[in-house]
This record gives sequence, C-alpha cells and structure tokens, in this order.
Amino acid sequence: MSTAPTGNTKTIVLGNRPLREYVLEAIVSLNREADVIEILGRGRHIHRAVTLYNTLASRLGDRVTLKNVEIGSLLIKGRRVSYIKISIAKK
Amino acid sequence: MSTAPTGNTKTIVLGNRPLREYVLEAIVSLNREADVIEILGRGRHIHRAVTLYNTLASRLGDRVTLKNVEIGSLLIKGRRVSYIKISIAKK
Repeated sequence: MSTAPTGNTKTIVLGNRPLREYVLEAIVSLNREADVIEILGRGRHIHRAVTLYNTLASRLGDRVTLKNVEIGSLLIKGRRVSYIKISIAKK
Repeated sequence: MSTAPTGNTKTIVLGNRPLREYVLEAIVSLNREADVIEILGRGRHIHRAVTLYNTLASRLGDRVTLKNVEIGSLLIKGRRVSYIKISIAKK
C-alpha cells in the first residue's frame, strides 16, 4: 500500500509484499515524478524498511542520498507501535 | 552484550535478552558514567532497538534527547546485515 505522492514525495508503506516489489516501486517512482521517497516501516516491518533502504542505496549508488531517518512510536488501534521513516532524495 | 564505554559513550548491542534488561542497563549507565548511550540493533533486532529507544524516551522524558540515527549494512560472516545505531544523549 502506498499513498499518492504529495508534490514530489512518494511514501511507500512497508507491508507483507515481497521486498523486491517495494524496490521496483521505489525505482519506478524515482524515474518518474518523485524527487523524494519516504519509506515507512512499522513494528516488525522496521527491519525490512532498513533493508529496502540498503538495497536501493547499493543499486542506485550516488544517484540518491539519505535525507533523513526518523524514529518514534504511533498509536495504532490503541496500541503503541514503533516506526521508522527513511527519506531518500534523488541527487 | 555491551562494550566498555569509550569515554562517556556506552554502546548497548541488542541481543536476545528481554527488553527490560536493556532498559535497566541504559538507565543505570545514564545515572552513572555515561553521557551518551548508543543502541546498536542488527537484523531482526532493529525493531527492538527502536522500541528500546521509545521506551527510554517515554520513561526519561526531557532528561534525554535523540542525538543521531544511523542506518546501513554490515558484513557479518560473509552476509550483508542491516543495522541501526541510535544515539541518545543526557541533557
């Protein structure tokens, strides 16, 4: 699931789909309208969010740069869930 | 497992122990010699590293501040493993 890009930022919310689908989605978005990709990983998907970043960084090399890493917790259905938001920018 | 503090930085490497043991270790260190706590989470422990940070932030409130969040990958026994390093400083 990913939300519509706000301006030139595209948010990718990590779910249960295979990682390569998110890699493809991110690369296609960067090649099209997106200047910034925000990877949002919640709970047990936090690890895959970091792995997605590492995969993109190794694939795209210096065409992208790590802009920001935000961590915290969200209240989801009354439960506090940790999250990470990783912002990658096109150079 | 945690390494000896370098200067006033104490590194806590997340392993399989219960989270509350790491919470206790961090709080005791901050009350003693440490000015900065570095939480290192590798692979599937990345999620617990973020949860440890959230637990400390909610417990200690404005006595501590988030100094830095570093993400990347390490080569461990020939395998590339994602990691997160979260630095918390005493105010």
